[in-house]
Amino acid sequence: MRLDELDTPALWVDLDVMEANLDRMARYTAAHGLALRPHIKTHKIPELARLQLARGARGVTSAKVTEARVMAEAGVDDLLLAYPIWGEKKWERLRDLSHRAKVSVATDSEAHALAMAGALGPEKTRISLVVEVDLGGGRTGLAPDGHLEKHLLGIARAGIPIRGLMFYRFHVENPAEGGMARLGEALAGALEAFRRAGVPLETVSGGSTPTAFFSHLLPGLTEIRPGTYLFNDCNTVDSGGAAWEDCALRVRCRVVSTSVKGTAVIDGGSKTFSDAPRFAGAGFGRLMQAPEVPCARMNEEHGLLDVSASGIRLRPGDLVDVIPNHVCTTVNLHRELFGVRHGLVETVWNIAARGKIH
Amino acid sequence: MRLDELDTPALWVDLDVMEANLDRMARYTAAHGLALRPHIKTHKIPELARLQLARGARGVTSAKVTEARVMAEAGVDDLLLAYPIWGEKKWERLRDLSHRAKVSVATDSEAHALAMAGALGPEKTRISLVVEVDLGGGRTGLAPDGHLEKHLLGIARAGIPIRGLMFYRFHVENPAEGGMARLGEALAGALEAFRRAGVPLETVSGGSTPTAFFSHLLPGLTEIRPGTYLFNDCNTVDSGGAAWEDCALRVRCRVVSTSVKGTAVIDGGSKTFSDAPRFAGAGFGRLMQAPEVPCARMNEEHGLLDVSASGIRLRPGDLVDVIPNHVCTTVNLHRELFGVRHGLVETVWNIAARGKIH
Repeated sequence: MRLDELDTPALWVDLDVMEANLDRMARYTAAHGLALRPHIKTHKIPELARLQLARGARGVTSAKVTEARVMAEAGVDDLLLAYPIWGEKKWERLRDLSHRAKVSVATDSEAHALAMAGALGPEKTRISLVVEVDLGGGRTGLAPDGHLEKHLLGIARAGIPIRGLMFYRFHVENPAEGGMARLGEALAGALEAFRRAGVPLETVSGGSTPTAFFSHLLPGLTEIRPGTYLFNDCNTVDSGGAAWEDCALRVRCRVVSTSVKGTAVIDGGSKTFSDAPRFAGAGFGRLMQAPEVPCARMNEEHGLLDVSASGIRLRPGDLVDVIPNHVCTTVNLHRELFGVRHGLVETVWNIAARGKIH
Repeated sequence: MRLDELDTPALWVDLDVMEANLDRMARYTAAHGLALRPHIKTHKIPELARLQLARGARGVTSAKVTEARVMAEAGVDDLLLAYPIWGEKKWERLRDLSHRAKVSVATDSEAHALAMAGALGPEKTRISLVVEVDLGGGRTGLAPDGHLEKHLLGIARAGIPIRGLMFYRFHVENPAEGGMARLGEALAGALEAFRRAGVPLETVSGGSTPTAFFSHLLPGLTEIRPGTYLFNDCNTVDSGGAAWEDCALRVRCRVVSTSVKGTAVIDGGSKTFSDAPRFAGAGFGRLMQAPEVPCARMNEEHGLLDVSASGIRLRPGDLVDVIPNHVCTTVNLHRELFGVRHGLVETVWNIAARGKIH
């Protein structure tokens, strides 16, 4: 089947670009002796997790037990739940998951570790913990200050084996010119507290796509968890993590109306792209056929291209491709991802873990 | 089952509030002799469409053929596709749908009407058209100017029976003090062009939730298509279409971390609420237990409550309820909606048309 024949909106990936992205990250992590544990929130597709593992990834990262379960059923045997999993039903699923794969769970409080240990009972040693520290993300994680050692000892009392440390810092200013060095100082303080507390540090896990290729500048880091890197998107480019030609994922849409002067309406809106805002500027994506045309606004099923200042002549029925602002929330809205090479559909993947909210 | 026992995040609706919302709209439209054709994009649940029909709705509105199909399979027999449906596969599905229900489709161009008629072939008279005019929405629709009559004659040449006019105007400034009167003047101009062109006007369909209760101020209007009114949300309240006590839909979340000072993190982010922005102000919703606490920012699976200026003491494990900014994009992310009365789960609805993008 040709790309042109797909019903719109259609989520598709340029396989050449995606494979180059996968290869580049695999080469980088191998060259620097870093383990790679990609976050599968981006693609939610077991077959893509397998491509990552085949290129040397140690395991995968997930935020949800149900999402991780989909990966385990597809044979992924090493899972980090980078989230403080909380709730009776979740802990039941977690116990079940621990019989299918090696499972670690993030925690950032004694309260959480104790509650989870209580629910898991004697099976609590089937999983391990990574303790999250906050190195400037300001979301979750313990501060790397004088209280960290005490918190670590509290978490250790829960009796779930501790495997190491994780942090999430999405953005670092000027990573090459001092940004990573400053992050490294904060990390060193946290590592020191772990050593004082006598807590194992088998894994020191950090990183996201925008800073991935600066990870070797962080002494002590053993693993990174980028997600977006296989697809990339407008926000990865805006944050300096990729170039436009590295953006592999697009949504093919059709122009359905040009009746309002200066506007071409496409059949994708916030239920196709998500309403993720653009980091640098406004609008809902980048039009591949005419990057100068602003993807100005969206409603649920309408995308409004502002063609008022462009020479482009779009007619109802025309097909266009849009690079989303944020691929992770876009992919989550679709059932299928089409793998395309040179205009031909080579593969169709079921987005098996889409919409898994528990 | 008690609401407290649901796994989080859980999408739930207060049935008393929802039923009052349904009753109010039914009473209003009946009192003013207006037909009600609710847009099912909001709930995507056949059982809720049936509740709307049981209260006198004439039929339903949908944007997607696949979404309409779900409704037709549940027995809904009168469907308006308020969207310029375009594409071979969609037209095939449309033909099939026309054997299951009475179907109208919006159009705003001769190009669209001709293309669709060509694809439907001899079956084109099984459906009907409503011609969309743009009365200030600036999205789709023909301008109500001197060219409208010519456009109408062009659309009529496609040979699909025309049933009337529709428009979509989400927001009207000061509806009671002149806003609706000005909209009425624009509508009158469009109606006049229809009469001059000799095009039938069986239906004159307009309206959305924010302006729904001002619809009687529009001479000539026969039908309204509100969607959000049964649930309401922050943006309905911000736009003056409802009060906080009319907001029936909430997401129950759990606090999973309070390790970062001034912050409580809940287990719902942009994959639970969508990233829909708030009309008036920032943030991702309204916390029912403490409306003064800003729902400050979101990542995909994290919602960050800013508790720095509040007396509220949230602990990991606590449950909270959040009214979303935009219910339509929120519901689309979930598989189930729990109907709750006085803290007890009375019903579980499958969101059968969620994620239908074609």
